[in-house]
Amino acid sequence: MKRAAQILTHIPDRPSKPRKDGLTMVMDKGLSLREAEDLAAVGSEYVDFVKLGFGTSVITPDVDRKIKTYHEAGMTVYFGGTLFEAFIIRSLYKDYVELLRETGVKMVEVSDGSYEFDHSEKLDYIRKLAKEFTVISEVGSKKKNVVFTPAQWVEMMKAELEAGSVKVIAEARESGTIGIYNDDGSVNLDLINTISRDIGFNNVLWEAPLKQQQAWFIVNFGANVNLGNIAPNEIIALESLRLGLRSDTFFSFLPDSLK
Amino acid sequence: MKRAAQILTHIPDRPSKPRKDGLTMVMDKGLSLREAEDLAAVGSEYVDFVKLGFGTSVITPDVDRKIKTYHEAGMTVYFGGTLFEAFIIRSLYKDYVELLRETGVKMVEVSDGSYEFDHSEKLDYIRKLAKEFTVISEVGSKKKNVVFTPAQWVEMMKAELEAGSVKVIAEARESGTIGIYNDDGSVNLDLINTISRDIGFNNVLWEAPLKQQQAWFIVNFGANVNLGNIAPNEIIALESLRLGLRSDTFFSFLPDSLK
Amino acid sequence: MKRAAQILTHIPDRPSKPRKDGLTMVMDKGLSLREAEDLAAVGSEYVDFVKLGFGTSVITPDVDRKIKTYHEAGMTVYFGGTLFEAFIIRSLYKDYVELLRETGVKMVEVSDGSYEFDHSEKLDYIRKLAKEFTVISEVGSKKKNVVFTPAQWVEMMKAELEAGSVKVIAEARESGTIGIYNDDGSVNLDLINTISRDIGFNNVLWEAPLKQQQAWFIVNFGANVNLGNIAPNEIIALESLRLGLRSDTFFSFLPDSLK
Repeated sequence: MKRAAQILTHIPDRPSKPRKDGLTMVMDKGLSLREAEDLAAVGSEYVDFVKLGFGTSVITPDVDRKIKTYHEAGMTVYFGGTLFEAFIIRSLYKDYVELLRETGVKMVEVSDGSYEFDHSEKLDYIRKLAKEFTVISEVGSKKKNVVFTPAQWVEMMKAELEAGSVKVIAEARESGTIGIYNDDGSVNLDLINTISRDIGFNNVLWEAPLKQQQAWFIVNFGANVNLGNIAPNEIIALESLRLGLRSDTFFSFLPDSLK
Repeated sequence: MKRAAQILTHIPDRPSKPRKDGLTMVMDKGLSLREAEDLAAVGSEYVDFVKLGFGTSVITPDVDRKIKTYHEAGMTVYFGGTLFEAFIIRSLYKDYVELLRETGVKMVEVSDGSYEFDHSEKLDYIRKLAKEFTVISEVGSKKKNVVFTPAQWVEMMKAELEAGSVKVIAEARESGTIGIYNDDGSVNLDLINTISRDIGFNNVLWEAPLKQQQAWFIVNFGANVNLGNIAPNEIIALESLRLGLRSDTFFSFLPDSLK
Repeated sequence: MKRAAQILTHIPDRPSKPRKDGLTMVMDKGLSLREAEDLAAVGSEYVDFVKLGFGTSVITPDVDRKIKTYHEAGMTVYFGGTLFEAFIIRSLYKDYVELLRETGVKMVEVSDGSYEFDHSEKLDYIRKLAKEFTVISEVGSKKKNVVFTPAQWVEMMKAELEAGSVKVIAEARESGTIGIYNDDGSVNLDLINTISRDIGFNNVLWEAPLKQQQAWFIVNFGANVNLGNIAPNEIIALESLRLGLRSDTFFSFLPDSLK
């Protein structure tokens, strides 16, 4: 089938891995080792990051072998930010660093979605961790009643990128109904446009668990927008969306002469 | 457990494969090779068609071995209609036929759900392809704002069956909220009744991704209605519905004396 | 990663298996043998019961080997109550007992969610079956139009526990929108509080397929509430919720001094 992909014209270019744009982050919330191998088999070309969601990594059997499996498939593994926060709220920062070293993960998420601490403290963690690890940080609360203005989102994101985050994550949870989305999963246009204008859309990893959200970002920001919280069984479906091979993005990359 | 199925009376008969009625079409949107083997293991008796959804087939690793796996399990594989349309809009019809031959698939879907071209052209494709392949064609747009009247559905379906389609597919997408369904996934009664009356319900492969939809068709049209866009992990659940072994169809096949 | 779980303080204790509280019941609605092995690998420590949902067990390939797989992983298998009802409505009680013996399952669900028969008859079945098997019985209709008052729920549950059920199951279906939940999946507070007060929350196995429902029970009844109808791919996510390692329960087990 390789030839088919070559015959089809007007398929957007995707940078090859390791890449800085067009990132796909998959959420693993407790796959078995064999399911992780399946993810690796399907996604080695398409998946950049695997997040072991929230605190799942500390209770998942065979997690060390899972991490190894993902690494061997060229995917960067990191623990969900909630685990970081669970250590921080217990004043166990050093133990967390120790955990990262022991498990061989090279990337760390810094977030404050559940435990709200001072933003300057968050920036300190980013700075410190960036000396040893690739840091990605998340902005946005996991709680419905904590709402930031677009200006606050921008200010925090800017500061976190300057502190050393390679990307900032825009929160949406697994459900896709929080943070940058409205209650029904539709995009918060004003917020996303402001972030995109002031931060640059490609400095952000947009959590987009729902197909309508993935399609919206691809239609509006192009094939190589960074998308996260993708379910393991949606990897190929998302890549199809990116390439204009699904109805929702069918016309997005075609010249007017073909429409 | 074989004996259990035999002890239970009033379980509807299901024709054995290959069959013309009571078809189950499963949508594979990027399973790994091993997951495909699992589908084959569970579904060899129950699944007739496996659709490699939209354009996933051209980017899924090991797709040739997947096709072989399904074929060996007695399942007929075909590519999603969106891939056909992606070739047609690029004027690559001959390349598509070449692709079908190379991959050894024996069935082809002709659709116009994303790229709207002349219906007479669609009928031409059906006629041409029917000489070499089993053709299945799909009616209904994937776009919310393109709505056909029941009379238009019937007219198109009739013409496509006459042109050589073995079944016509009634569009619903993976979400089950388009085409023959309302926004909330409930059935469009008037439309389905008209199609059923004028076309014959068994000439149609009804896309029915949601359980409530599957149950509705089984209650109203019987155990051997043709259903499509079934998720891989719903194969046995659907077959249970067909046999009256789930609450939603529990009384459907029982005589009055037992109710 | 074992050490990480030990470093984290204020993680609730979970009794080890076999346990009487803090039970997790997973619904298998037609997994392949290999997928069952994956469930066993991930869940051997966390899953107590595997329900082979409704009538799926009689049509699932390799079901005997699946049962063996689960048993070897220390999980108790039982057939969905709808299968029991399918035998009862056909006056095949003895055949059902025979089936249980043949398949080696040690637990049986007695329910009347689809086929409504006299409650005294239900109690008789519980009494008879309890002599040979572990009995679990379910209260609540699968039909939207059959609604019991809280007092009726309590009365039935009490009688069933006295008749020999080790736990009573509070109905919710796979969708989580029936029985103890409202149409939108939110909890029926009055009903659940009444049941909990009069029956004891830990005598009930609460069906809670949706995350918001699982979180509600854990926040309100603690880490060791009994939860059922959990999807196979949610095992680790649920256990994370139980341990306060996911945002929804992040503060539930922390002392005030840390909040």
